[in-house]
Amino acid sequence: MAVGTELLLGQIVDTNSSWIGEQLALAGIDSHFQTKVGDNLDRMVAAFEQALDRSDAVIVCGGLGPTPDDITRAAIAAVMGVELRRDEAVVERIRAMFYRRDRQMPANNLQQADVPVGARVMDVQPGTAPGLICPVRRGEPGPATADPPADGEKVIYAVPGVPWEMQKMVSECVLPDLQARAGERHVIRSRTLRTWGYSESGLAELLEPEMRRLDTTGEATIAFLASGMEGLKVRITAKAADDETAGAVLSAVESRARAVIGEAVFGADDDTMESVIVALMQSQGLTLGLAESVTGGLIAARLTDVPGASRVLRGAVVPYDREIKTDVLGAPDVNAVSSDMALAMAEGACRVLGADVGLATTGAAGPDPHEGADAGTVWIGLHLDGGGEASRVRFNMARTMVRQLGTITALNLLRTRLLARGG
Amino acid sequence: MAVGTELLLGQIVDTNSSWIGEQLALAGIDSHFQTKVGDNLDRMVAAFEQALDRSDAVIVCGGLGPTPDDITRAAIAAVMGVELRRDEAVVERIRAMFYRRDRQMPANNLQQADVPVGARVMDVQPGTAPGLICPVRRGEPGPATADPPADGEKVIYAVPGVPWEMQKMVSECVLPDLQARAGERHVIRSRTLRTWGYSESGLAELLEPEMRRLDTTGEATIAFLASGMEGLKVRITAKAADDETAGAVLSAVESRARAVIGEAVFGADDDTMESVIVALMQSQGLTLGLAESVTGGLIAARLTDVPGASRVLRGAVVPYDREIKTDVLGAPDVNAVSSDMALAMAEGACRVLGADVGLATTGAAGPDPHEGADAGTVWIGLHLDGGGEASRVRFNMARTMVRQLGTITALNLLRTRLLARGG
Repeated sequence: MAVGTELLLGQIVDTNSSWIGEQLALAGIDSHFQTKVGDNLDRMVAAFEQALDRSDAVIVCGGLGPTPDDITRAAIAAVMGVELRRDEAVVERIRAMFYRRDRQMPANNLQQADVPVGARVMDVQPGTAPGLICPVRRGEPGPATADPPADGEKVIYAVPGVPWEMQKMVSECVLPDLQARAGERHVIRSRTLRTWGYSESGLAELLEPEMRRLDTTGEATIAFLASGMEGLKVRITAKAADDETAGAVLSAVESRARAVIGEAVFGADDDTMESVIVALMQSQGLTLGLAESVTGGLIAARLTDVPGASRVLRGAVVPYDREIKTDVLGAPDVNAVSSDMALAMAEGACRVLGADVGLATTGAAGPDPHEGADAGTVWIGLHLDGGGEASRVRFNMARTMVRQLGTITALNLLRTRLLARGG
Repeated sequence: MAVGTELLLGQIVDTNSSWIGEQLALAGIDSHFQTKVGDNLDRMVAAFEQALDRSDAVIVCGGLGPTPDDITRAAIAAVMGVELRRDEAVVERIRAMFYRRDRQMPANNLQQADVPVGARVMDVQPGTAPGLICPVRRGEPGPATADPPADGEKVIYAVPGVPWEMQKMVSECVLPDLQARAGERHVIRSRTLRTWGYSESGLAELLEPEMRRLDTTGEATIAFLASGMEGLKVRITAKAADDETAGAVLSAVESRARAVIGEAVFGADDDTMESVIVALMQSQGLTLGLAESVTGGLIAARLTDVPGASRVLRGAVVPYDREIKTDVLGAPDVNAVSSDMALAMAEGACRVLGADVGLATTGAAGPDPHEGADAGTVWIGLHLDGGGEASRVRFNMARTMVRQLGTITALNLLRTRLLARGG
């Protein structure tokens, strides 16, 4: 359950629930419904009751702040049929937090220390809002009382809506608690391989023997996650008695997966296409110059988002007007959307920017054709180790997509050539 | 209700519901809950029944495609207590669509023509999936029958999950039908002013007299929507007996709002900062050259996303390495993060790229300081009509944010100078 009228009004997109859904899937916990509800006590209570009727556990996100519209605590107390009581240990924790930041604590922050009787405060508390683990006995609703339910059959986890606070609490408290309640006595670890170039069915075909093997052994699972233009993720999840065993299973499955997918695996976990390229070039002691026409600065923008990119990237020229291709990059007077132009731009980027490697794009982003080329045509030029190559791709899509796909295609070409060179 | 297991797994973020929530708010229709549910018949039926118990109308998005996991039609039929019947008019519409695209129609596409008895097919059908308006009588559930409910007290609107198809159906069918059911006999029109530079409270203060006036007359409302780094939107919504009156009210309120907000209004409705700049420069007959160090191509990438940008943008140099600032742009050997460097880069961009106007950025994106400047420092240089100016901003944020905020700040500086020049 995500709480906040601003979510219903579409002022904020609820990415917290998506993140939690992914984590639950990863931890092997079925998640059947996600609900957004506004800052309204009656509707929150109704939503909690519906959620508890159809699920064993409910994670609620948001509404734990210090302002009057933060009423998640009150709604949970109503559902539990208990009162809110100020928790002095939490009061001290909040006071200490303000003290450390050398800030005055507004009095209304103490409201965050109000805890439904019978609820437990999470140990992990990254911000001023404590997370709550609230046992709920369903069946016989009664008036508010000071008696906590002896041992709730069901449970509500309340976490703040601030993403980094929520993520820490869910990872370190909610998921382990859920797994313990489910009688889970294993550790669950995962690794994500980032791939580019295969479709989901293509990857599934390659990994079919390994997935069939894992079906038998049960030591791990493999799942695919589409990440739009950033390719497909292959997530390996291992369940084992301890960390060491889980890690060994992950490594073994990862090697087998890499062996069949090959260089379409561009990285793992938090790697991005651009971070991998910066690392590869740095390890090979190479510098890069860009000449981007159709991608208009997107390749440079992605590479320069990587901290330390300055050790690799010399710079870029965006010769958007045809004359610049000639005047600045020294390209010959050939068709602007052609193999020859892509090659000349890549070579020019090396020369003008003093780089070892030159990468260039030229094409017709659309909506109209450009220099005789259909909208969606992208030529990629690469100049490396004194030689050049050009390749052509065509995307039958809108302008923004053509530019984005041209960008990642160019980056991937550079990556594969660096790999071939290094290996 | 958003339908799709991939939503629960977090593989896709549900932006459709956010969009619909925004449209409902704009149309003055209260929206109290949003639910995501997977591709599971029992759970979809349960979710529909809960939704109908607590609301007068339900919009369901997704699950109308031709594959076996598209079961929204079947779930609605179960909730209505009716059968699905193939609608021959819809069959013809789908066949014609494939014929026009010169594509073979897979047989399973005809499944999309199955309509619950008593439901009405929406007139607007941008894709192969028809939208459905399904009256539902609540109270006495019974077995499936061929008899439609005589006149449903409540209603389910089913629209596809493909955003552009969904948006067209919601705007042109669902909202008018909802307003008609609510006895609404007015037209509702809105205009959005895009602003950059004010906080929400700053805008609220400026617009307070106008908002107080509108509270009295009731002819329109003003609402604020935060759009992150793209500034704040001021949405004016007018309700009137007819289009003409609504339009006149909108125009009058818009002028008064623009008069107090001033040039912080950079555009209206679908305008973006970059589309406004391309239009301004084109109307003034000016061309632009960029020299981007700290923003690393982001300004060029945004401007080149505008169709027709080539009539204005000559090109860009991204002198990421210090030497390129000197070698390519001819900047003097001064501190790379300084007023002098920003000015020299802007002037160099004009000269090297043959442009009328030069815009430059240099700074320290972080996480580390750079050339003696703290992380987060951005110098912006502008060369225009033979004169130059430089300004410094400092963002105490992460690398990506510094680069993004530097980009929009530079674009906004250019915009205000173009306005001053034009006026």
